[in-house]
Amino acid sequence: MKLKEIADFVKGILTGPADLEIIGIARIEEAKPGELSWFSHPRYKKWLSKTQASCVVVLKGEEGIPGVNTIKVENLAIAMESLLLKFYPLSPMPAVGISKLSAIGKNVKMGKNVSIGDFVCIGYETVLGDNTIVMDGAYIGNKVRIGNDCQIHPNAVIKEDVFLGNRVIIGSGTVVGSDGFAYNRITTPEKNGDYKYKRMPHRGGVILEDDVEVGANSTIDKSVIGNTIVKKGTKLDNLVHVAHNVIIGENSILCAQVGIAGSVNIGNNVVIAGQAGVPDHITVGDNVVIAAQSGVTKDIPAGITVSGFPARPHIESNRAYSLLIDLPDLFKRVKKLEEQSPPRRDVPCKQQ
Amino acid sequence: MKLKEIADFVKGILTGPADLEIIGIARIEEAKPGELSWFSHPRYKKWLSKTQASCVVVLKGEEGIPGVNTIKVENLAIAMESLLLKFYPLSPMPAVGISKLSAIGKNVKMGKNVSIGDFVCIGYETVLGDNTIVMDGAYIGNKVRIGNDCQIHPNAVIKEDVFLGNRVIIGSGTVVGSDGFAYNRITTPEKNGDYKYKRMPHRGGVILEDDVEVGANSTIDKSVIGNTIVKKGTKLDNLVHVAHNVIIGENSILCAQVGIAGSVNIGNNVVIAGQAGVPDHITVGDNVVIAAQSGVTKDIPAGITVSGFPARPHIESNRAYSLLIDLPDLFKRVKKLEEQSPPRRDVPCKQQ
Amino acid sequence: MKLKEIADFVKGILTGPADLEIIGIARIEEAKPGELSWFSHPRYKKWLSKTQASCVVVLKGEEGIPGVNTIKVENLAIAMESLLLKFYPLSPMPAVGISKLSAIGKNVKMGKNVSIGDFVCIGYETVLGDNTIVMDGAYIGNKVRIGNDCQIHPNAVIKEDVFLGNRVIIGSGTVVGSDGFAYNRITTPEKNGDYKYKRMPHRGGVILEDDVEVGANSTIDKSVIGNTIVKKGTKLDNLVHVAHNVIIGENSILCAQVGIAGSVNIGNNVVIAGQAGVPDHITVGDNVVIAAQSGVTKDIPAGITVSGFPARPHIESNRAYSLLIDLPDLFKRVKKLEEQSPPRRDVPCKQQ
Repeated sequence: MKLKEIADFVKGILTGPADLEIIGIARIEEAKPGELSWFSHPRYKKWLSKTQASCVVVLKGEEGIPGVNTIKVENLAIAMESLLLKFYPLSPMPAVGISKLSAIGKNVKMGKNVSIGDFVCIGYETVLGDNTIVMDGAYIGNKVRIGNDCQIHPNAVIKEDVFLGNRVIIGSGTVVGSDGFAYNRITTPEKNGDYKYKRMPHRGGVILEDDVEVGANSTIDKSVIGNTIVKKGTKLDNLVHVAHNVIIGENSILCAQVGIAGSVNIGNNVVIAGQAGVPDHITVGDNVVIAAQSGVTKDIPAGITVSGFPARPHIESNRAYSLLIDLPDLFKRVKKLEEQSPPRRDVPCKQQ
Repeated sequence: MKLKEIADFVKGILTGPADLEIIGIARIEEAKPGELSWFSHPRYKKWLSKTQASCVVVLKGEEGIPGVNTIKVENLAIAMESLLLKFYPLSPMPAVGISKLSAIGKNVKMGKNVSIGDFVCIGYETVLGDNTIVMDGAYIGNKVRIGNDCQIHPNAVIKEDVFLGNRVIIGSGTVVGSDGFAYNRITTPEKNGDYKYKRMPHRGGVILEDDVEVGANSTIDKSVIGNTIVKKGTKLDNLVHVAHNVIIGENSILCAQVGIAGSVNIGNNVVIAGQAGVPDHITVGDNVVIAAQSGVTKDIPAGITVSGFPARPHIESNRAYSLLIDLPDLFKRVKKLEEQSPPRRDVPCKQQ
Repeated sequence: MKLKEIADFVKGILTGPADLEIIGIARIEEAKPGELSWFSHPRYKKWLSKTQASCVVVLKGEEGIPGVNTIKVENLAIAMESLLLKFYPLSPMPAVGISKLSAIGKNVKMGKNVSIGDFVCIGYETVLGDNTIVMDGAYIGNKVRIGNDCQIHPNAVIKEDVFLGNRVIIGSGTVVGSDGFAYNRITTPEKNGDYKYKRMPHRGGVILEDDVEVGANSTIDKSVIGNTIVKKGTKLDNLVHVAHNVIIGENSILCAQVGIAGSVNIGNNVVIAGQAGVPDHITVGDNVVIAAQSGVTKDIPAGITVSGFPARPHIESNRAYSLLIDLPDLFKRVKKLEEQSPPRRDVPCKQQ
């Protein structure tokens, strides 16, 4: 594609030679002549002038860079999305139809254009909407409801009584609808204080609403009664744990290895960064940001950014954690102050 | 079911109309008229008087609530367990028998009423006890011993030389018996200091004793020699990591995303909350509680509750971490004290 | 095997009876008479004299222990590796050949002695090198390149456009090549500030170079463009998360539950201990050690050992964290100093 064609394709303004041929897309620090790149994250500012890319797509408003060809666009993300798909089209989806190497239970209902891969199991009375794809090796239990345009990736597991909306994506190895971790301690009076744990029956379900997407090897547990719910548009990364009875609002983001304990209630537009944890029965308000590795210990009101353990408003927490490294020095300073003090106490001024 | 029937069924004492019809069970904050609920966690106290449930099951000894129908029972957990199963019976278990779509190795021995799902692989010389269920897509290696009444959930992996007792549950996606992460650094003298890592052969096994239950996507590694052991009645949640050569005692609880490094020895009746970590070669005594996200750094004697990083006795650690947020203020206060001090040192009282 | 035979086998020097019969190998604290053990970790020093083992293999240079038979060797790890395999030979690998219960796509190329297990799926145009083993239930996508002598363990998932070098091991349940977690926030102007997340197309790949080994249930994401790369000889443990666009150098070690966020660049010979996290766009130099549970927040220069949150040089960080527990006491001491100060300020010496 020539630069002019690309600029037209993304409705951008070209500064550079119209007929320069572009053969591929690469990251700004790796691009070679003949390749197109883009500039988004400020960390890569220095690469704007150093890049070998033949042209850089930038946001309208970005200053021109002398000697660098640019295409300025209204929406960088959308422009790059369409260019990536233009240069590197997606592989064709699995052929529509039901593999002969699958095992489909009784009374399964399927919409139009459903695709079922090899070695897939589907339990009885399960419903799959139009255009939904269940990839090789995935397991879907009994009485599951899956909407339209969903993708269930290889070796994912969706257990009984799970409900997925439309356009839901479940990554490889992810388990949805496993029994929650709720045990009762049963004492055995004859054995004087001895006890054992007995699991509560988990007779509830899991609801993942429209446009929910879950990465690889995450786990979402079902409830004792009622539903574990993830609302519209919320995205979960890899190795995320969502316990039984949790409710997560709309358009929220849970990054990799985040853990949400039982009966937690999370609002809309929340961002929880990697490895952070929220203990059971906590409420997290709308628009909250929880920084990476935070350990939440109490309810968080709407709109707050928290960090640290115990998680506190980020500005204060950050200030406190920055001083941690100076603690040995502080102890020395206090010791010195104490050493200066005692003699004065012995000979106080006012007694003179 | 009528309230009187329910009260009789759980051997409880009814305060309310005997013939009121109950059509389902719901959580106390979500229950509607016609539904039964229960009250367990003190956080839900406020809901006792606000609930729309037609009746609430409570523990004997709980005060009556004016205007709320109650059934008082000796053991709330057992009462609710039986009511949940009465109102919402479990789906029938997979039909007994061996799926024609499974692959069973040579010399596999099976007890009575064994159920093997679709696309299950079972290695040679493996033994499965009575009533054990291996669900769709699960993999069981060579020379595995599995007791009676076990459940291996879809897509779980149990590798060679693993031993499971009776009533053991392995959740979906969980891997038992993967090789431990023990490498030797092999220096290559000809390349002056260069080295590469070479894995120790892991020729040991994993033993999960009776009533051990493991959630989804957890991993339990085998040892170089001898066994990784989880003792009777211990429960592991999702995404838990148990390294090679670990021993975990009886009736212990490991919550989601806990990590136990190699050769750790954990006692009986221990509780380890979410995302906590125990490094290699540590001993954790009986009845220890390790709070969420704790980072253990040394042996923990029996009966202690610890928290924080480095994990210390919880009361002290909690007090220290609560003060963390006041650290910036403390630095200011010390600075002020220092500013006050120097002039006095210059003109000390006793020299007057 | 007799002790003399064992000593000859590992080219070691025997102190003890040449013809003593050894029937097995056990850990030093568990060994019984007739068993051989070894001494590596200093923590087990006390067991050297207490062990019931009939002989202990030790490193040349280790002092003799009165009354304990020893074999002294040049390289303990290599000696024990060969002895373990001698006494406990590995199970024969799966028979070479392609299971009739597998599903192989079009234009798949295989080298010599390839082994494909039951219920394995392999996508089109994928290449498998000589002696490579794909175990039961594993999924391999389209256009994957796998080198010689690789092992793909049961139920592992390798998605489209992944490249594995030679001798690469992928553990059970691990997912390589899942889409990265990169979303654009698309605002919907008509709905006044409302937005939704839209995933960037991930058209890049993953490269795991020669001798890379990955444990169970880990996840390695593919990039938007370009490759996520793990270089020669690097080893990843279980439940590790490697995000899109990450580069990890040679001979590095990532322990269980470590999380590496997007576009991180990690050097050679790095060790990252369990549950540590590195946020996006960070650079970690060669020979860095990151202690367990550390939370990195900025670039780490080569050769440094860091710990804590925020991760700082270990010696300082360790000193600071050790003092954390004394914080309540420090607050009291400062309060006391303040109480002593005010009266003096009111009656300052120099005004007398």
